[in-house]
Amino acid sequence: MSKTNSGNFFEDFRVGQVLTHATPRTLNEGDRALYQALFGSRFSLQSSDEVARAAGYACSPIDDLLAFHVVFGKTVPDVSLNAVANLGYADCRFLKPVFPGDTLSTVSKVIGLKENSDGATGVVYVRSIGRNQHGDIVLEYVRWVMVRKRDKASPAPETDVPTLPKAVDAAYLEAPVGTDFSKFDLAASGSVHLWDDYAVGEKIDHVDGMTIEEAEHMMATRLYQNTAKVHFNQYMQNSDKAQRRLVYGGHVISLARALSFNGLANGVKIAAINAGRHVAPCYAGHTVFAWSEILAKAEIPGRRDVGALRVRLFATKDQPCATFPGVTEGGHHPAVILDLDYWLLMGRR
Amino acid sequence: MSKTNSGNFFEDFRVGQVLTHATPRTLNEGDRALYQALFGSRFSLQSSDEVARAAGYACSPIDDLLAFHVVFGKTVPDVSLNAVANLGYADCRFLKPVFPGDTLSTVSKVIGLKENSDGATGVVYVRSIGRNQHGDIVLEYVRWVMVRKRDKASPAPETDVPTLPKAVDAAYLEAPVGTDFSKFDLAASGSVHLWDDYAVGEKIDHVDGMTIEEAEHMMATRLYQNTAKVHFNQYMQNSDKAQRRLVYGGHVISLARALSFNGLANGVKIAAINAGRHVAPCYAGHTVFAWSEILAKAEIPGRRDVGALRVRLFATKDQPCATFPGVTEGGHHPAVILDLDYWLLMGRR
Amino acid sequence: MSKTNSGNFFEDFRVGQVLTHATPRTLNEGDRALYQALFGSRFSLQSSDEVARAAGYACSPIDDLLAFHVVFGKTVPDVSLNAVANLGYADCRFLKPVFPGDTLSTVSKVIGLKENSDGATGVVYVRSIGRNQHGDIVLEYVRWVMVRKRDKASPAPETDVPTLPKAVDAAYLEAPVGTDFSKFDLAASGSVHLWDDYAVGEKIDHVDGMTIEEAEHMMATRLYQNTAKVHFNQYMQNSDKAQRRLVYGGHVISLARALSFNGLANGVKIAAINAGRHVAPCYAGHTVFAWSEILAKAEIPGRRDVGALRVRLFATKDQPCATFPGVTEGGHHPAVILDLDYWLLMGRR
Repeated sequence: MSKTNSGNFFEDFRVGQVLTHATPRTLNEGDRALYQALFGSRFSLQSSDEVARAAGYACSPIDDLLAFHVVFGKTVPDVSLNAVANLGYADCRFLKPVFPGDTLSTVSKVIGLKENSDGATGVVYVRSIGRNQHGDIVLEYVRWVMVRKRDKASPAPETDVPTLPKAVDAAYLEAPVGTDFSKFDLAASGSVHLWDDYAVGEKIDHVDGMTIEEAEHMMATRLYQNTAKVHFNQYMQNSDKAQRRLVYGGHVISLARALSFNGLANGVKIAAINAGRHVAPCYAGHTVFAWSEILAKAEIPGRRDVGALRVRLFATKDQPCATFPGVTEGGHHPAVILDLDYWLLMGRR
Repeated sequence: MSKTNSGNFFEDFRVGQVLTHATPRTLNEGDRALYQALFGSRFSLQSSDEVARAAGYACSPIDDLLAFHVVFGKTVPDVSLNAVANLGYADCRFLKPVFPGDTLSTVSKVIGLKENSDGATGVVYVRSIGRNQHGDIVLEYVRWVMVRKRDKASPAPETDVPTLPKAVDAAYLEAPVGTDFSKFDLAASGSVHLWDDYAVGEKIDHVDGMTIEEAEHMMATRLYQNTAKVHFNQYMQNSDKAQRRLVYGGHVISLARALSFNGLANGVKIAAINAGRHVAPCYAGHTVFAWSEILAKAEIPGRRDVGALRVRLFATKDQPCATFPGVTEGGHHPAVILDLDYWLLMGRR
Repeated sequence: MSKTNSGNFFEDFRVGQVLTHATPRTLNEGDRALYQALFGSRFSLQSSDEVARAAGYACSPIDDLLAFHVVFGKTVPDVSLNAVANLGYADCRFLKPVFPGDTLSTVSKVIGLKENSDGATGVVYVRSIGRNQHGDIVLEYVRWVMVRKRDKASPAPETDVPTLPKAVDAAYLEAPVGTDFSKFDLAASGSVHLWDDYAVGEKIDHVDGMTIEEAEHMMATRLYQNTAKVHFNQYMQNSDKAQRRLVYGGHVISLARALSFNGLANGVKIAAINAGRHVAPCYAGHTVFAWSEILAKAEIPGRRDVGALRVRLFATKDQPCATFPGVTEGGHHPAVILDLDYWLLMGRR
């Protein structure tokens, strides 16, 4: 029996299969600082223990997306080591804050399978659940990924495509228990614009651009213990069409979220990700820009201090966003690399 | 009202105006480690909790310059987002040590304005004050910066140029309350040379050179939440004359200070910055060297264990400093990028 | 007396001389996170406080190699600032776990000297001992290094070459006091393969490759306060034959150890390094691969829960290791950059 993990191929998955992923990971102040250095986020809740305590937290929580990337990273050796493409995310909910000292681990369940007509690949749907050391679910999400078959001759499984919500129902959105954003310090947060001030259909150019370096996306992706070879192995990538190491899609999500501060500064946390697609690859040397459209607004059940904005966040490469490059009849604007639909919590008046 | 911050232009400033800057920032052990990784400093007080405790600190303090950069970074969105050039610093005093867990925030006051004769730009003078979560001032400084006008037709304000001290008066220098450097461990610090051993006029070549990478200066500058576009946006910089991302001037200060260990190893902390100029731009790929001249020596009021050296620190790019390249009649040597005049605390015999 | 340290030259060393190295260094959670970001290690004991507590540790220990690099880094200004080449390591034992908050310092003793026949250089043998703030030895090792003479005319010292063990005797191997790996969680560690499952002579390709960037190896090496100029100063290296900054050899060791997770996931800690050679230089842009051969197996005196594997770890540059490129009659395969012989602790059935 080989000592080396070669990952699962399409024919290794079964609907209902449970994958307990390796390497629990304790997050700490060092992870927070590195995340800060890599993305330059300025949301006050994730930057200041004082702001967090005033809002009812024990201390400043770990950025939602850092927790997401760590939970996601664990799934790679079992789910996507032999992936051709990460196709999408859905039904992602952030359920508990993560604090320095918390240890995250991930379990996934295979919830769907569909072999492609070429017989060489298939789509695997998994629901991944990240828990802390107390067993509490901190976040969960569904992703689907195209995975190679080990052997083209392997019989195709019965097609079983799960029904996924187009968006997380606002009725299920939650703000963390014990928090209160009614006295959120707007001088500290850097913006006077609250939930009440945003209109459905409003578009916001986040203005700034951030150029990505190889060292940066590799350090980030190793921080999450994500082992996908395409991010790290230039020798192998020399044989790839692009001849480049691919930037982890989650790196672009984090950059776009950090850029969105300029226009959404009071967006205190991500409550849910409804859908996400990495529309085009991103490589080192690209400058990432972002813009947002407000798709909907919702009240949070039982909360008067905070509401939810449904935001469609586009990231582009080497393309400023003053003209809001997004989707047209012919598909995405060629500069778009990320199309993310999420629920953002923001304080109310 | 736009949700996006486009920064203040010259005509938006008024003498006496108070700017409360956004995003308080809790500094922690992760910030310390990153600062270590970026600059390679070896001063024992900032490296070892044991050394710090022996000198009367609760634990090793955060590097003075890391605190400075964080306090400075907060001012950028309000003061220098539309800056053409950062012209100088003066009257900077470090008043309280910063420890992991402290949360820093910054308030600035506009103390001077002078429109340039071209009518397109003006110089803004601000005094910025950084405080910890207890409201204690940890450091303060004056800087002046050339800022674009939004509209050339806007009327010029009355010229009001503040009188600034050429140097912080030694009578105002302080060593942290409760500290005692009389038994500072010279085996641990790496040098037997103390305050008594330095002579006014003495020049010290710090020998080593450090090459800067894009990923490094961007990670550092994001760590400080400094948002100046010129450091991060290569797409935009492609239209600039230099076609390069500019290295944050404070990055060069930190590198030069770290290099100065070789010759000033017992310089336990920066007490004040008298004046500072970024004489020429620095880009990734440049190798930074440094040398120092002792301008003056002063006793610290009420302290026998520690004295102050007034040091002029020059940093160069791609130019070793054995010949002490500095200022000649014609101005600065073409390789000089930093000319910094500061007060350094050092133990006495 | 010059304020600048120019390092020791060959004629400055005497057998029996004790060098107390500068700059004690407190390691913290930030160092752990940076090490994670730089190497992407996935060993569960070093990743999770929960896993570590279950095995009897107070919390997750600092990676053995991070401690090694810090202890090593301190020796550079005194031992190898004027080195031509780092020739080898031997008799390295890891004696105590290091935890966040521990402060490491290093003392070295010169144990051998041998001038080279050219009269311009000589080999210096030192035993370096790293201690924590309690004075406990955390690790010790011997290295030998070729150092330039200041003056070719200086008389040669008497040749005194120490006898070094070819390998650390298994009878001296220890597992940390108070630990118990009998219930080590194999779902968390990511592998079912334990000490019992490895055979002497077994070869394991670790499959993955990792490309090195300049920013990465420089950040790592500064984190350790290693000051060897060749790693940092491109201006100086432009005059070198390779015209490149050299990657610190320890960087390759850490990368190879991290890659070895894929095949040795239950290798909980390095107990000893028997011998190590940096066979060829490594530069940024190289992709590092690794493979291991099991040289021997040993029981740990007094322990039934954990055994030792003697592992020979090869790292290569730009050469996948499916064919196990190592040593042939003519010497090392041209792609080999590291040949490391060490004792690895692993849980038993």
